[in-house]
Amino acid sequence: MASLRPIRRLPTPLIDSITYRSRPATHCFSQSCRNRATVGLDALDASKGDRERIVILGSGWAGYVLSQRLSAKYQTLVISPRSYFVFTPLLNSTATGTLEFRTALEPVRSKRKPNIEFMQGWADDVDFGRKMITVEESVVDPHQGKAMAEDRREDHSTGEVKSEKKGLRKEGKRWEVSYDKLVVTVGCYSQTFGTKGVKENAFFMKDVGDARRIRKRVLECFEVASLPTTSEKLREQLLRFAIVGGGPTGMEFGAELSDLVHQDLSKLYPDLAPKVRIAVYDVAKTVLSMFDEKLGKYAMQTFRREGVEVRTSHHVQELRPGLPRTGSDENMDDVADSQGCYTLTTEEDGDVGVGLCVWSTGNMMNPFVQKALDKTYGFPSSSASITDGKQPDELDTKEWMIEKHPKTGAIIVDDRLRVQLHSKTSPSSDEKPASSATMTDVFAFGDNAMIRDAQLPATAQTAAQQALWLGKRLNKGDLESQHFTFKNLGIMTYLGNSKGLVQTEGWLGDISGRAAWLIWRGAYLTMSVSWRNKILIPVYWFLNWAFGRDITRF
Amino acid sequence: MASLRPIRRLPTPLIDSITYRSRPATHCFSQSCRNRATVGLDALDASKGDRERIVILGSGWAGYVLSQRLSAKYQTLVISPRSYFVFTPLLNSTATGTLEFRTALEPVRSKRKPNIEFMQGWADDVDFGRKMITVEESVVDPHQGKAMAEDRREDHSTGEVKSEKKGLRKEGKRWEVSYDKLVVTVGCYSQTFGTKGVKENAFFMKDVGDARRIRKRVLECFEVASLPTTSEKLREQLLRFAIVGGGPTGMEFGAELSDLVHQDLSKLYPDLAPKVRIAVYDVAKTVLSMFDEKLGKYAMQTFRREGVEVRTSHHVQELRPGLPRTGSDENMDDVADSQGCYTLTTEEDGDVGVGLCVWSTGNMMNPFVQKALDKTYGFPSSSASITDGKQPDELDTKEWMIEKHPKTGAIIVDDRLRVQLHSKTSPSSDEKPASSATMTDVFAFGDNAMIRDAQLPATAQTAAQQALWLGKRLNKGDLESQHFTFKNLGIMTYLGNSKGLVQTEGWLGDISGRAAWLIWRGAYLTMSVSWRNKILIPVYWFLNWAFGRDITRF
Repeated sequence: MASLRPIRRLPTPLIDSITYRSRPATHCFSQSCRNRATVGLDALDASKGDRERIVILGSGWAGYVLSQRLSAKYQTLVISPRSYFVFTPLLNSTATGTLEFRTALEPVRSKRKPNIEFMQGWADDVDFGRKMITVEESVVDPHQGKAMAEDRREDHSTGEVKSEKKGLRKEGKRWEVSYDKLVVTVGCYSQTFGTKGVKENAFFMKDVGDARRIRKRVLECFEVASLPTTSEKLREQLLRFAIVGGGPTGMEFGAELSDLVHQDLSKLYPDLAPKVRIAVYDVAKTVLSMFDEKLGKYAMQTFRREGVEVRTSHHVQELRPGLPRTGSDENMDDVADSQGCYTLTTEEDGDVGVGLCVWSTGNMMNPFVQKALDKTYGFPSSSASITDGKQPDELDTKEWMIEKHPKTGAIIVDDRLRVQLHSKTSPSSDEKPASSATMTDVFAFGDNAMIRDAQLPATAQTAAQQALWLGKRLNKGDLESQHFTFKNLGIMTYLGNSKGLVQTEGWLGDISGRAAWLIWRGAYLTMSVSWRNKILIPVYWFLNWAFGRDITRF
Repeated sequence: MASLRPIRRLPTPLIDSITYRSRPATHCFSQSCRNRATVGLDALDASKGDRERIVILGSGWAGYVLSQRLSAKYQTLVISPRSYFVFTPLLNSTATGTLEFRTALEPVRSKRKPNIEFMQGWADDVDFGRKMITVEESVVDPHQGKAMAEDRREDHSTGEVKSEKKGLRKEGKRWEVSYDKLVVTVGCYSQTFGTKGVKENAFFMKDVGDARRIRKRVLECFEVASLPTTSEKLREQLLRFAIVGGGPTGMEFGAELSDLVHQDLSKLYPDLAPKVRIAVYDVAKTVLSMFDEKLGKYAMQTFRREGVEVRTSHHVQELRPGLPRTGSDENMDDVADSQGCYTLTTEEDGDVGVGLCVWSTGNMMNPFVQKALDKTYGFPSSSASITDGKQPDELDTKEWMIEKHPKTGAIIVDDRLRVQLHSKTSPSSDEKPASSATMTDVFAFGDNAMIRDAQLPATAQTAAQQALWLGKRLNKGDLESQHFTFKNLGIMTYLGNSKGLVQTEGWLGDISGRAAWLIWRGAYLTMSVSWRNKILIPVYWFLNWAFGRDITRF
C-alpha cells in the first residue's frame, strides 16, 4: 500500500506584496455555501459535522446520478479522475457536430449542490477494516477526457500523451480519506480483446476527449482530401471510415457520420462526399442484436439506403498507422506520407486503408476492481455481516475476498447493491464450503458490478435506475426493507436521416422511423441534467437544422 | 524556391467493394453549389471560367472580411494555415467561460458563399513575374489553433507539439497556384522581444487553441490547489496569475478572469478565491495608454477594486517551468513537483511562482513577409507601373524589392492598399536615388502592411475597414478613382464587473461604467458574422447570467 504524505502546513503564508481586494457583494459566504469544504482534509472533516460521509468512486452514470440524488443529510464526497459527468448517449452527436461538446457534460462541482465535495484522483486502494480510501491525484493528467483501454500505469499511449507526461511524475501524490459508506461505481474500460494496435491507434467513444478527437479527425480527412497534393488513392483512403462494433454506440456513430456527410459536407465538398465509405465491422452475424427481428431488418434497410455498409462476421486482426503496403506503390507505404491514415486488417478483407477507425466493442473490467479489490482481508467486522450463519469465532481465522463474477470480473452484489464477500478456501481444503458475508456499508453498481443471479444490461439506464433507487433508500434510511428491481423502459437507437428505433415492453410497443427519432431526442432532452443543457441542446438542434452543423475544426 | 509536385492522377479509382448509395434528396447539386470546386487545381481552373481569381493569403480580420465581401464575379481563393476566422475581441470571453469557443469562430468554407474556395496551407513563396503562389500544406499541423511566436521551421515549441509532429514530415508537400490579383493579409506573430523562455512557456491569446489552453489551465490550477496533497505554498503560486502586456487584450483578460473568480469560482472554491492574485505587468509607465487620462484613471480604480494588480514599469527577464528555487525549501524547486507552475522573473520583483503567464505584448512581423517577400525581382511588368516617370528601358537592368517600413518590417502600400516596389540601389551607387513602382494587382493591408505616411492602429477595426473598402472597390471596379481613408469609430475595452470604457471622437464622446459595457457587448454582437453566432452569443450570455459559467474542464 502507498504511503500517506500528510499535508504540510506552513505556519502562516507570507503576506504577498500583491494584495487582493475582494468585492464583498459577489463573494459567497451565504448559507448555501457554508457546507462546502474545499481545501484540506481537516476542512472536510470540519464541514462534515455529525453527518455520515458517503464516498462515491467515479462520476459516470452510476456515481454521478447517485451524488445528485443524495440529500444534504450526508456529506457526499465524489472521487473521480475526471471532474465531470458525461451524458454518453449524446457523445455521438457531439463527435459529428450536431451538438456542442459541453451539452453532454455536467461538472461534478456545482453551485446547486453544496453538499457534494469533490476530489480529483484515482481510487488506488481501500482498507475495509479502517474504512479508508487511498487516492492518487490526477488533475494534471494526460489521460483525462479519453477512454481507457488499459491500466494507466502500463502506458502504451500515443506520443502526444507521453510527452505531455514528461516533466510530470509518473505517479501522483497519494492521500487517504475515510468513509462511513463507500460506493464503488468506477465503471469499465474499453475492451479491445488484445487486438494488435487497437489500444494505440483506435478512436474510442467513451469520453468527451474521444468525441473531440473524432470530430477533428473526420473534418481533417476531408480537408486533406481536398488538397491538390493529395492523390486519388490517398483521397479514397482518407474518406473511408471504419467502425468496429455493431452495438447501438457504433451504429449510431455511423448514422450520425452519414448525416454529417450527406447534410453538410456534401455541400462544402461536393466532389468528395460521393467518395465517402462508412463501414461497420462486427464479429457477430448480426448488429443491433438486442432489437427484435422486424426492427433489425428495418435498421439494416435504413443503413443501406444511407450508404452505411454493415460487415458482419468480420474478424479484426490489427490496426496500425500508415497506409496498406502494396508492391506497386512505393511512396504509399510510408507512415509520414499517410496523412494520419491507418491500415485496418481483417481476416476476411485483408488490409484496408482508413481515415480513422472508431472502436466500440464493449467493456473490460476496471483495473481498480480487477487489482485493488482482489486482495484478501481480515473479516471487516464493523462493515460486514455473515450471511450463512457461521460462528463468529470462525471469522478471525479466515481470509476474506470480494466475490466477483468468474468470467467478467464484476463485483457481485445482493439485491440491495451491497458488496458480497466470501472466505478464501485454501486449495487443500476444497471440500469445505466457503462462508459468505455482506458488506453493509460498501455498495457497488453500474458496469463494474452485477446483482447475483440477475442479468441486467450494462447500460446507462441500468446504472441510473440503481443510482436513483440507492439514493432514495439512503435518504429515507429504509434500505433493509427494500429490494432493487430493474424496470426495463425499453431500448432505442438512432439510425440516421431522422429515423430511429424504439422497442419497449410496455404499451408503447415498437416504433420505427421518424416518430422513433422524435422519441429518442425527447427522451435524451428530458434526461439531461442541468437547465443549462436543457436549453442549449434544443438551441443547437435548431441552429444545425437552420444553418447546418458547425464544421470549424480546432 | 520549392519544387512543385504535380498532382498524380490515377487512371480510374478501383471500385471499392463497399458501395455507396447516395441520398439524392439531400445531395447538393443545386445552383448555389455549382461554383464550388473542391478537388484539384484543374477543377479550380474549370470552375473559375472567365472570372478573375483573387488569392487571399490569411483568414484573419483582413483576409476573411475581404473574402466575405467579394462578389461572385471573382473566384476567391483563401489560402491560410487555419480553416477558420477568429473573432478576436471575444477570445478573452471564451478563455474564461463567458462564451463557448465556437462563438468566436467562423469557418472559411461556408454554404452561404460558394464562390469562396479554400486551401489549407502556408503561403511559402510568390513569383510576381509568373503570378504564382507556392503553398505548403498544413492540415495535419500541430501548430494549428495556437499563436505563433517564431517561424514554424525554428521549432522551439513545447513537448506536446513536437511529439505530435513525430511521424509527420517536417515540411509539408508544396504546390503552386496562379492568381490574377493577390492579397497579402497574413497578419503578425506574437512579439516576445526575445525574452528568455517566453516562446516556450507563455500562454498567448491570439487563436482559439490559446484560449482553450488558458481556460483549461486556470480551472486546473483551482482543482490542484484544492487537493489535500497541495501545500499552502504551492497553493499560493497556483493561484497567482500573471499577465504581461497592459494593452486592451491583456487588461480585458485580467478583467474577465477576475469576473470568473468572483462570480463563479468563489462559490465552488470559497476557501481558494480569496487567495487568488491577478497581476498585469507592463514595461511602460501606464496601461491602456490609448485612452485619455480620465478614462485611464477610471480603469485603474476599477481594476483596483476588482483585485487586479497593475505593475507598470516592470521588466520581464525570464519565464521558466517550475517553481522559484529557494534555499530553504528543497522539495519545491523540482519541475516535476510544481504541478505545471512557472517562475516569472522580473528585474523589479525577482522570481515569482505563477500558475500561468498570459503574454500579450503586441506584434512581430510575419516570417512570410520578413523572408519570402524580402527577395529581389526583375521588374514584374505585367503587374507593376512605375510611379516616378523612369524610362522603360531602365527597368530590365534593375533589381526590384518590396518596400517595407524600416523599423517594423511592414509592407508599405499606397492609399489604394497596393504594394509598393523600389529598385535596389547597390551600396556603391548610393548617390543615385531609387526608382519606385506600384504593384497594380498585389494588395496588402491589416497588421502586416502600412499605408505610406499614415499611422493607423494595428487593430481589427483598421483591418476590417480596409477589407470592406477594398472589397467594395474591387466589386465596383472603381479602385483607380478612390482612396482609402480610415474612420476612427472609437476604442473600447472591458474592465470587469460589468463595467467598460468607450472613447469616440464622434457625438457619443467618452463613456465609462455599465453603459460602456453594454455598448461593448452590443458592438461585438452586431459585428459577429454569422446568424448562428448572433443567436448563440446572447444565449450563452443569458445562461451564464442565470446559471454561472461552465467550469467543466476538458
